Amino acid sequence: MRIIKYQKDNEVKRGILKGNKIFKLQGDLFSDFSVGKETAKLEEVQLLAPIKAPNIIAIGLNYRQHALETGAEIPERPLVFLKATSSLTGPDSEIILPKLAPNEVDYEAELAVIISKKAKNIETVEVDDYILGYSCANDISARDCQKKLDKQWARAKSFDTFCPLGPWIETDLNPDNLNIKSILNGKEMQQSNTADMIFNVAQIVSYLSHNMTLLPGTVILTGTPEGVGFAREEKIFLREGDQINIEIEGIGSLKNIVKKEI
Amino acid sequence: MRIIKYQKDNEVKRGILKGNKIFKLQGDLFSDFSVGKETAKLEEVQLLAPIKAPNIIAIGLNYRQHALETGAEIPERPLVFLKATSSLTGPDSEIILPKLAPNEVDYEAELAVIISKKAKNIETVEVDDYILGYSCANDISARDCQKKLDKQWARAKSFDTFCPLGPWIETDLNPDNLNIKSILNGKEMQQSNTADMIFNVAQIVSYLSHNMTLLPGTVILTGTPEGVGFAREEKIFLREGDQINIEIEGIGSLKNIVKKEI
Repeated sequence: MRIIKYQKDNEVKRGILKGNKIFKLQGDLFSDFSVGKETAKLEEVQLLAPIKAPNIIAIGLNYRQHALETGAEIPERPLVFLKATSSLTGPDSEIILPKLAPNEVDYEAELAVIISKKAKNIETVEVDDYILGYSCANDISARDCQKKLDKQWARAKSFDTFCPLGPWIETDLNPDNLNIKSILNGKEMQQSNTADMIFNVAQIVSYLSHNMTLLPGTVILTGTPEGVGFAREEKIFLREGDQINIEIEGIGSLKNIVKKEI
Repeated sequence: MRIIKYQKDNEVKRGILKGNKIFKLQGDLFSDFSVGKETAKLEEVQLLAPIKAPNIIAIGLNYRQHALETGAEIPERPLVFLKATSSLTGPDSEIILPKLAPNEVDYEAELAVIISKKAKNIETVEVDDYILGYSCANDISARDCQKKLDKQWARAKSFDTFCPLGPWIETDLNPDNLNIKSILNGKEMQQSNTADMIFNVAQIVSYLSHNMTLLPGTVILTGTPEGVGFAREEKIFLREGDQINIEIEGIGSLKNIVKKEI
């Protein structure tokens, strides 16, 4: 099932998408909901980030080949960092190159996990019961802030629009063997499979739940594969007018356009 | 004016505290509110963390003497990190030593700033208009995770109960010259003044607003002075049964008791 959030006639609503038809989501997203009557067509609405997250938790260096390309060691435990919740943006929206750090803004294709109910100290075998679904995310990162200026990654990854998420939440998916790609102006930049993760989704969610309470709506970014812009022989950073797509098998394609901050 | 959040008879309410009398807070905390009728006495209620934050943003190494004691250089710009919003806890509540990292849990007395309205690209002279008020915070940190295991600080500072905040939000305060202390089991551990900050409140808020949109309710921790447990000649960490108070001139005292995770 595909859960969407959308805007139509200045109203923001949740819905369930089947083909190009949007149906009402009846009930509570985090407890019990059902499919209501048809309300609109996909082409009539503007999709938004499918969730408002209480926290965005991210895992660094979680694909073997990406850890290698950055010269980092394979982590012994998930490397946890946070993105400000204000960095969320939706599909088809703009990624803004911030005035303070416009020059080394990079893409990172990531599988996002969305938590459905409060999770604390859960084991890997229980994790499935706590997941609402999956989405595509782009963990946008200002590499100058991240690598040279701050060392802590929070600011580099928390500028407004630095967490595109969408286009929807897919509820029925096995996350452990999915092709994942980023495509910049039509050219494939990252191409891998979630099977290359060092810690898989169940291990990540269980680990995090032993470190903190995961609240309903929490978004967890599970790391990016090799092929990011800063680690290439000829570095590539996002420039005004670029189109960057994140595609994950079984979910869909998250498209964003790059703009400069005015 | 002192703004509180409290629980009484299983209901959670906002109020305004005058002496030991609680008055109804009428209207919207983030736009326009007034003082209503008296509803309870302070001793009849349980105070809670005074705000539910969309983000907790913190500044590292922001007191000159603390930067020196940790052996770090004086930062050229505010060093930004994030704490998970799920780490918030109130006055008189427990700080839980987490099972995963119970041994090197440290206190940090901090002046907390609470944002009243959406702030983006504001200048230092405008900052006052965007601040709801100030509170005492304790930036609890598991030093083993922070210093040895993760390097990124997010996990070390995001365990549940690792952000005590309170006892209330004081709206009328000049933040630039306030005594600030932490007191462990009656013994003064940190004793400084916000005048020792490298970046003052106006500079921090303005800087952050150029990096991201500060949403209403955002909590900003402005750094801790010297005297933290891990930097002492004989290291001191929090142990079960400890009482830790954070006291800031013009605000009050935030008290918490330390417990082990069961």
